[in-house]
Amino acid sequence: MPKIQSVQSLQTLDDFRALLKTLPGPDKVALSGAVAHESILTKPPGALGRLEDMTAWLCAWQGRYPPRLEKPTAVVFAGNHGVTALGVSAYPAEVTAQMVDNFQTGGAAINQLCKTFGATLRVQALDLDHPTANFVQAPAMDDSECVAALATGMAAVPSASDVLCVGEIGIGNTTAAATLCHGLFGCTADTWTGPGTGMFGERLAAKAQVVARAVALHRHSWRDALDVLRYVGGRELAAIAGAVVAARLQRVPVLLDGYVCTAAAAVLESCSAGALDHCMIAHASAEPAHRHLCSKLGKTPLLDLNLRLGEASGTILALALLQGAIACHTGMATFGEAHVSGPCNHNG
Amino acid sequence: MPKIQSVQSLQTLDDFRALLKTLPGPDKVALSGAVAHESILTKPPGALGRLEDMTAWLCAWQGRYPPRLEKPTAVVFAGNHGVTALGVSAYPAEVTAQMVDNFQTGGAAINQLCKTFGATLRVQALDLDHPTANFVQAPAMDDSECVAALATGMAAVPSASDVLCVGEIGIGNTTAAATLCHGLFGCTADTWTGPGTGMFGERLAAKAQVVARAVALHRHSWRDALDVLRYVGGRELAAIAGAVVAARLQRVPVLLDGYVCTAAAAVLESCSAGALDHCMIAHASAEPAHRHLCSKLGKTPLLDLNLRLGEASGTILALALLQGAIACHTGMATFGEAHVSGPCNHNG
Repeated sequence: MPKIQSVQSLQTLDDFRALLKTLPGPDKVALSGAVAHESILTKPPGALGRLEDMTAWLCAWQGRYPPRLEKPTAVVFAGNHGVTALGVSAYPAEVTAQMVDNFQTGGAAINQLCKTFGATLRVQALDLDHPTANFVQAPAMDDSECVAALATGMAAVPSASDVLCVGEIGIGNTTAAATLCHGLFGCTADTWTGPGTGMFGERLAAKAQVVARAVALHRHSWRDALDVLRYVGGRELAAIAGAVVAARLQRVPVLLDGYVCTAAAAVLESCSAGALDHCMIAHASAEPAHRHLCSKLGKTPLLDLNLRLGEASGTILALALLQGAIACHTGMATFGEAHVSGPCNHNG
Repeated sequence: MPKIQSVQSLQTLDDFRALLKTLPGPDKVALSGAVAHESILTKPPGALGRLEDMTAWLCAWQGRYPPRLEKPTAVVFAGNHGVTALGVSAYPAEVTAQMVDNFQTGGAAINQLCKTFGATLRVQALDLDHPTANFVQAPAMDDSECVAALATGMAAVPSASDVLCVGEIGIGNTTAAATLCHGLFGCTADTWTGPGTGMFGERLAAKAQVVARAVALHRHSWRDALDVLRYVGGRELAAIAGAVVAARLQRVPVLLDGYVCTAAAAVLESCSAGALDHCMIAHASAEPAHRHLCSKLGKTPLLDLNLRLGEASGTILALALLQGAIACHTGMATFGEAHVSGPCNHNG
């Protein structure tokens, strides 16, 4: 079991760095199986657009043809952030734990979406009673805290999943995501800072100043993207990064939700180009920086519905698209079976 | 039963014109019920973005709170076009009837999508053995043919539907849609003409010339948008217009698929502003003119997945989003029920 080995062997951030060098590539045989079958189905070539891309992607990264989509799993990671002491969120920090309870009793948006589309929901809270350090004063996590969060994320991926839908909740975590992106990609703090759950005007400007201060404090200390995660990320962000890597090792394709998830995953791409090739971005967040981040990663989100909830909500809607894609690919008749004529021979 | 009365009383195009003046408006009580309940659910205000708009829209046009989404229906209209004699399509005209057979035996994309998301599929072929007249020579339909197609469309809407997903198939019908749009909105023929199932380069240019010739021939004959539909539309396009009107009269909200459906529906909006207020456009077609048409109608498609299949395929994917929206609205806990704190009181 690659999963158990990987998690057990994770003692230091360097172990995780080493793991990032062992990521498997796509299965080209499964991929070509998908492409070949797609071409004989009763529709004009390419007429199902991105649904066809999704099918090919699922096959390539499951390493299996035909693909399987019976056991989709959503994992929502929850963390708390010392930086909330600076008033960067519209909601009090206690809401993180309250929403975890809401997930566990079935009352949140993600519960309804998972029920509607048949996904199993797993909620993984990371030491909510002990927020990360306020990163305008000190690194958010020390080495062992960051490793523990990465390992928790890795262990949270059920090995039998057909696709992993990754989400998060954490009051203050759009500030962490913005700081992470500012640390990883530069630009200005304003570029990466958005209203989150409801910070506008002066409060948004103050939030951007927090982001700028944190990067100014730590930028000479970090050596790589994983260090940036440790200094200005958070436990749920590290867990997301761990889960994305564990999924790759277990051949589970990943749907990433909005801004915070994509920021966490961007750490991996910054460490190792191609580390997110098994991921699609489910939804373009209403958080303005998300589009900028997606374009840095060369990825186009599947949906654009002005969501800004997190909780993996966008991933389950994208899962519905994937279910449609796979149903078409595996259920449609071929031109031969259905006695449907192909294109005219236009030679004049 | 407004449906039966309307269809039986439809003898002339003027009857349909009169019907367009009787369309009911939204139910404001149902709408305000949706808005009020949305505001107490455990999420930041507006965080579900367009899903919240979809819920409010469904309530307003079903005229019911809470909304219901147990019986979604897809109707695919099929027609044949005399203009195919000019080589405007990559596929031979016989494919229309072959694909209708494919729908009926369950082999097409739309069958798989309806099965996946629980929609009932109804296929309505319109006199496939008798294509409409080639509209570069004569009006596509005479008055009675057009009325018959409108009436067929009206009768095809099951009164018990919770939402109507409208689609089409008809070799040559992107040429009809382009000609219809050129007739309704002007601009150039090129603006409205796209590759359809696979016409590029010189063949695309020739297709645009057909569009231009047809409008030049008939433009001094038609008096209103309904005439344009009769002169350069087609039976399945008229049926779509009829179905959209019947749905409005029966309080069934409508999801419109791509370019051909939107063009047919645009006839109604051109006749009577607001006639499409009960419709959402499911998907931005890969057919380039569709975006232009959507912007003429002031509507933003829900999805953008590069589909160009028709068959109502985009509407069923949008139905999945609607199912997610309604599940969240009706299933989520309120702040009070879940003991989740509201926003901080930031007064300083």
